[in-house]
Amino acid sequence: MNDLSRLCIHTATTKPWSIEIAIEQYARAGVGGITVWRDALSGRDPAAVGRRIRDAGLEVVSLCRGGFFPAVDRKARRKAIEENLRVVSEAAALGAPVVVLVCGADPEQALESSREQIAEGIIAVNERAREAGVRLAVEPLHPMYADGKSAINTMQSANDLCDRVDDPNVGVAIDVYHIWWDPNATAEIKRCGTAGRLFAFHICDWRVPTGDLLLDRALMGEGCIDVPRFRRIVEGSGFDGYREVEIFSTRYWSMDQSRYLEMIIEAYRRHG
Amino acid sequence: MNDLSRLCIHTATTKPWSIEIAIEQYARAGVGGITVWRDALSGRDPAAVGRRIRDAGLEVVSLCRGGFFPAVDRKARRKAIEENLRVVSEAAALGAPVVVLVCGADPEQALESSREQIAEGIIAVNERAREAGVRLAVEPLHPMYADGKSAINTMQSANDLCDRVDDPNVGVAIDVYHIWWDPNATAEIKRCGTAGRLFAFHICDWRVPTGDLLLDRALMGEGCIDVPRFRRIVEGSGFDGYREVEIFSTRYWSMDQSRYLEMIIEAYRRHG
Repeated sequence: MNDLSRLCIHTATTKPWSIEIAIEQYARAGVGGITVWRDALSGRDPAAVGRRIRDAGLEVVSLCRGGFFPAVDRKARRKAIEENLRVVSEAAALGAPVVVLVCGADPEQALESSREQIAEGIIAVNERAREAGVRLAVEPLHPMYADGKSAINTMQSANDLCDRVDDPNVGVAIDVYHIWWDPNATAEIKRCGTAGRLFAFHICDWRVPTGDLLLDRALMGEGCIDVPRFRRIVEGSGFDGYREVEIFSTRYWSMDQSRYLEMIIEAYRRHG
Repeated sequence: MNDLSRLCIHTATTKPWSIEIAIEQYARAGVGGITVWRDALSGRDPAAVGRRIRDAGLEVVSLCRGGFFPAVDRKARRKAIEENLRVVSEAAALGAPVVVLVCGADPEQALESSREQIAEGIIAVNERAREAGVRLAVEPLHPMYADGKSAINTMQSANDLCDRVDDPNVGVAIDVYHIWWDPNATAEIKRCGTAGRLFAFHICDWRVPTGDLLLDRALMGEGCIDVPRFRRIVEGSGFDGYREVEIFSTRYWSMDQSRYLEMIIEAYRRHG
């Protein structure tokens, strides 16, 4: 793991940095890829950012994120689809081959209704995405987010959704943070690989104890997730893409980001 | 639901009250049952508390809680088994027909190892429990607790564990708070009922947004769980026991508990 060519970092991981600084710093450190969060593109031309990334010798891995399809209100669902079409256009301009979908959930309705609306939303966006050369990756989110961020909370549920949509342009983004606890995860990762829909692999760690539902993620090796085991399962299931470090952490965002980048690389080498 | 004869309240729900006050207040309100948490027995004779409960016209529904079996260290596992034998004796003295198990997890080892140790622990305790007329109810805990409180995080996992132990004295305690998000829950509740192992049914609600992983539970009707739907599924699967209100909430513990008891009863009548 001394080779960093398959290491990708999410701009949200080093959130205090502008994307220009992030590109420069990641490239200087030898990092291979970058996943861009939409807030990092604010006020910028996505095509120009894409050129800057490639000129620095980095690869654009994904754009984060689309999704949030479900709503009791039909107009809100239509607006969500329009927003996702904009996300697809941004990804195409940026040169991102994948858009990660945080699918959404409306707590005012049954989860099964939200799941149906997610499938409808993806189908409504997918044709444009396929034409643009942008794949859609459903990210199952930890069940603690079922009250709003996503009604897709397990690998099984993500696979079932992909079966429902049934298009090779729609697959799964696996984040160990969300699925590490699941006794069915290994079998469902294999199912995902067999179907040819393993599109992305995100890593970090689960801090013990976790102080915040959202912003207390840990570096690989600091928590209770066996990240290398998941890497072997994912790669043994046919995935050969980037290992993407995605960490939301108020404690890491508050420290010197250059030093933090060194820590990320060290954690990747030892526990990635 | 005007009839409160099948309503049970956990002493932990009205934690600021001593058990003596809780018994008096629940009985006066017409509540049918009480589930006793071990901390409420501190410094008291369980047999005397049991008599006091029955004299007040209440039924002892369960004792909470045993479990916490897994540990990397073998001596710690032996100590946990000894502690659980004490819990069984307490339940027998109290007259509780069920002990609820929060199974535990040691984040220093793989979850599968913790699951094996849970099965071993239950088997080691079960003979004494059976002889004492005390059934053991495995409570699957929400996946956000897989880092320490329990390696059993879904109904499927609880059913698989019961299959492994394979004794009619060991079953499942269902808490809607832990399983509401799970697309497999309905099928696994039915599996649980068919196997004759639906031992307990706990209700509350999931607040949106949830501020704390442990202490921000809501009253039925305040959150996004369809409690009546789960009640119908559980009762349609053969369960005819108490509906137990179990709420950990710093905000409710800080209010007048008599007023809170009225709110619990109102929520039970409208959304139980």
